[in-house]
Amino acid sequence: MSSIPDRSDIERHSIELIRRHTPARPYGGHSDVCSRVLAAVESQASASTIGGKRLRARLALAAHSALGSGTSSAMLDLACAIEIFQTAALIHDDIIDDSDLRRGRPSAHKALGDELGDPRIGRGLGLMMGDVLATCSIDVAADASRSLPNGQEIVSSFLAMQRDVGMGQVLDLAVELAPLSEPDRLAQASLNVFRWKTASYTTIAPLELGFLASGSLDPASCARAAHAIGEPLGVAFQLEDDLLDVVGTSSATGKPVGGDIREGKRTVLLADAIDAATPSDRATLIGMFDKDARTDDDVETTIRLFHDTGALDRSRRRISALWSHAVRELDALGLEGSKRDLMRKSCMDFMPMMMDAKNDPQQPLD
Amino acid sequence: MSSIPDRSDIERHSIELIRRHTPARPYGGHSDVCSRVLAAVESQASASTIGGKRLRARLALAAHSALGSGTSSAMLDLACAIEIFQTAALIHDDIIDDSDLRRGRPSAHKALGDELGDPRIGRGLGLMMGDVLATCSIDVAADASRSLPNGQEIVSSFLAMQRDVGMGQVLDLAVELAPLSEPDRLAQASLNVFRWKTASYTTIAPLELGFLASGSLDPASCARAAHAIGEPLGVAFQLEDDLLDVVGTSSATGKPVGGDIREGKRTVLLADAIDAATPSDRATLIGMFDKDARTDDDVETTIRLFHDTGALDRSRRRISALWSHAVRELDALGLEGSKRDLMRKSCMDFMPMMMDAKNDPQQPLD
Repeated sequence: MSSIPDRSDIERHSIELIRRHTPARPYGGHSDVCSRVLAAVESQASASTIGGKRLRARLALAAHSALGSGTSSAMLDLACAIEIFQTAALIHDDIIDDSDLRRGRPSAHKALGDELGDPRIGRGLGLMMGDVLATCSIDVAADASRSLPNGQEIVSSFLAMQRDVGMGQVLDLAVELAPLSEPDRLAQASLNVFRWKTASYTTIAPLELGFLASGSLDPASCARAAHAIGEPLGVAFQLEDDLLDVVGTSSATGKPVGGDIREGKRTVLLADAIDAATPSDRATLIGMFDKDARTDDDVETTIRLFHDTGALDRSRRRISALWSHAVRELDALGLEGSKRDLMRKSCMDFMPMMMDAKNDPQQPLD
Repeated sequence: MSSIPDRSDIERHSIELIRRHTPARPYGGHSDVCSRVLAAVESQASASTIGGKRLRARLALAAHSALGSGTSSAMLDLACAIEIFQTAALIHDDIIDDSDLRRGRPSAHKALGDELGDPRIGRGLGLMMGDVLATCSIDVAADASRSLPNGQEIVSSFLAMQRDVGMGQVLDLAVELAPLSEPDRLAQASLNVFRWKTASYTTIAPLELGFLASGSLDPASCARAAHAIGEPLGVAFQLEDDLLDVVGTSSATGKPVGGDIREGKRTVLLADAIDAATPSDRATLIGMFDKDARTDDDVETTIRLFHDTGALDRSRRRISALWSHAVRELDALGLEGSKRDLMRKSCMDFMPMMMDAKNDPQQPLD
């Protein structure tokens, strides 16, 4: 159906692009410890790039392919630039959240801190790695844009994506300060975070960049279609991700089940549960999430309340409605045959749970 | 002599560019706390942009003016983009160093943490502000490049600057792990840090961007001249900055005297002092800098040893040699009359101490 590069092609090429655009060699050679730290950072840049599903690059390649022709070398570079930016964003995200794990392995700042025997230096190096990789991603995208249609719009769209993710992270931190006593507003604020922090670079930008690079649509139509499809798809993806944290398994997500609850993350699930809870359950939930930390028992109680209040089902209904919305907008593109199938499949890859028959709404704890 | 925008013009225009390229409004409005945090971040972006000397923008404008004609609106934008990037870099630097003060006022993450009553959230917001402002600076530079000669080279040079600063910060963290027992290698490694962490964006990039935007030299000659002048000038600037930390006054630098010593920073001054010290003084210095913290007495002892070992004079000689080197390269440009004077003055602005007759080498503690 398609000649789109697969996950491992994308991963390998992303690492190659990082090495080409950010070589460590020019900076080194003045002391053993500098050489050692540069080598550690270079090797961690590769390690941090490994292990994702490459959904974003694949969506960009599919969008390009659906509207244009086969994947050019510049288009592959552009798709990989999105992945390189994601690596940068996740490294910073893990520093903000003080997370030791990413995709089941040590996060970048943790790995560097362990290797060099100093957590503070590990955090500093992680912060800088994120900066350097974000710059690298723009460099790759700008280079690629010179051989693609709509080059100027591609650079602008790539930069807008980075700004949106940063502002989405700002909103995400703000939501941590939101009162739990107004669950309806909390849910709205969280959905707004998903739009900026997640949908921006997960679905909207990959679609827009792929459409722009195809040269088949004018820039305004590319942006319109990318937002129409990408916004509901990206928000649905994040809702699934939060649901997976509660009903998934550790091996599927690379994170312990209930990790978001343990961290006290303010999610749409939590807002929905507080909204629908009895006064006594509401007090229990708010009490647990106002504490600095939650125990294993708290996590269990929370998951039970997410189920009993209907919050899990409500999230499934939200996801289903958003997915239908995205598909309607996708169909409005008027693609036919294999191009339509390719786009459908690439979008569906973001929703493994919804597509998985094993996930019976009556059996939330698999 | 020149119609170059002054410090306050540059500051005002930089703030205006940040507001135009990174407006907070599209992201807000879903909860009071989100609006409050967005407003705090927006206002801190302006606050963090205020108070610098704008030396980098002024050097870029002078370089443009010396080789070309008057300052165009696009050239002013490009010069301000360097300042916006500096703001971003300093915000991240203060997070890495856990510094509460910048230019005599609370650092961005500290101010935000205080305002929102949560230091962890302050650090997260600071980290994201740095990311968003770095992206904003590229956006401003890319926009400006479209109305300037050598547009593609301007974008590449701007991105190379950001990468170099990031790698310079990596090296700076590496030097913290360097053994004090090899002072000669420590001095070489520190000078290498200065080249990447400081000279890159302080002098080399402003010169290169100004030359490129003038359209009077081919890109390779722009790069060659910018490196030839900017590298010695930028390293001399950083050596002066480190010297000012020891012999300056708090009101001149906005930082307490001896702040670098208190933090245990591995500087060229320290390396030179260890190198030239008697065995007993050497043991004293290494002992103080191997500790987690230094007392007021330690700071006083260190400053005395910096003086007695001749390290202060050696730094002055290093600065003087680098300055002469930079001036020779500047003269090699063959500028005449007011254009030569303008460039001389813009370069000299980086060296207030060397130019200040009050700074008698025999009176290091003014």
